[in-house]
Amino acid sequence: MRSYRKELWFELPSRRGFVNITPQVAACLRESGIQEGFILCNAMHITASVFINDDECGLHADLEKWLEQLAPEKPHSQYQHNGYEDNADAHLKRQIMGREVVVAISGGRLDLGPWEQLFYGEFDGMRRKRVLVKIIGE
Amino acid sequence: MRSYRKELWFELPSRRGFVNITPQVAACLRESGIQEGFILCNAMHITASVFINDDECGLHADLEKWLEQLAPEKPHSQYQHNGYEDNADAHLKRQIMGREVVVAISGGRLDLGPWEQLFYGEFDGMRRKRVLVKIIGE
Amino acid sequence: MRSYRKELWFELPSRRGFVNITPQVAACLRESGIQEGFILCNAMHITASVFINDDECGLHADLEKWLEQLAPEKPHSQYQHNGYEDNADAHLKRQIMGREVVVAISGGRLDLGPWEQLFYGEFDGMRRKRVLVKIIGE
Repeated sequence: MRSYRKELWFELPSRRGFVNITPQVAACLRESGIQEGFILCNAMHITASVFINDDECGLHADLEKWLEQLAPEKPHSQYQHNGYEDNADAHLKRQIMGREVVVAISGGRLDLGPWEQLFYGEFDGMRRKRVLVKIIGE
Repeated sequence: MRSYRKELWFELPSRRGFVNITPQVAACLRESGIQEGFILCNAMHITASVFINDDECGLHADLEKWLEQLAPEKPHSQYQHNGYEDNADAHLKRQIMGREVVVAISGGRLDLGPWEQLFYGEFDGMRRKRVLVKIIGE
Repeated sequence: MRSYRKELWFELPSRRGFVNITPQVAACLRESGIQEGFILCNAMHITASVFINDDECGLHADLEKWLEQLAPEKPHSQYQHNGYEDNADAHLKRQIMGREVVVAISGGRLDLGPWEQLFYGEFDGMRRKRVLVKIIGE
């Protein structure tokens, strides 16, 4: 069994946003040389997410609006976590969007369906944050 | 390390529905001959889900009603994604239900708790769609 | 490839609660001796969760309040599942919080970000329930 590890770094200019990381993750896979296995891709921060959905800007606007309805940022005082922080909503939004994805590797490629794209979801940005890419296989 | 791959195809007659896929996934595992490892089971479409919960029709009715409250299908015009599409709600519902499950394989069997069953969750049906079953182990 | 399996048992004195299981999972990893691989940690019950978030009591109070808003326990009669049961809300809450996490193992350690901690999330407690820890790697 072989393994591979890389960290991808992000610093978004806004509090919230989505970044398509599929090309970067595919580049990690090529670098690893692994042909059959699993790739784990997870946010290393608890106010961010890695998820798979559509790369369509209308949907991303819908996700932003929907997450704000389910776990509104403001007023900050509605959350007990926000004594010294203001990011409780980001912790909740990330529970809906998920921490990680596991993707199959088949024939040296990400084994994705036709519209599946990997995204970094940021809910408390304007600082440097990381995604872990770990691959195991042969 | 050995690996195994299979696609399971579905075409549900309604827009939304849940299908217990545990027997099909267990059959994949037997076919693979793998005794110890992990099985990844994921929707290959971004308007569908693979999840683990109870095989109880009352709960499935509760899930349908609850998801419609959290991410209503109609009016279609409430979502920016619905310019050429009408399925934005399906993309949101699938975020709640999740894309994938990873299940342990122990002694050649799915290592599930007493009531755990795997389901395909369809949120934009009436078309042919796929689930990927990928197994790695020994 | 090596593998390791252990069950962790819990019996919470209340219906709902969160338990930091990071030390127990790290002990499993040390016992396994595995240096590179993946660790799967999943609830074996469909009214419980394993998730990763912050070990901060204000946030845990926010999560409890938020989950009760999204999937209220009472009135029990609002759910079809609650004919012979009273825990439909627990099945829904666990869909938001997730069944499982997969964590990378690098250099014999849980490859976690600075604030990532693993939790057992109980939504229908006061009974003995299990978490599965399964590790594969080398």
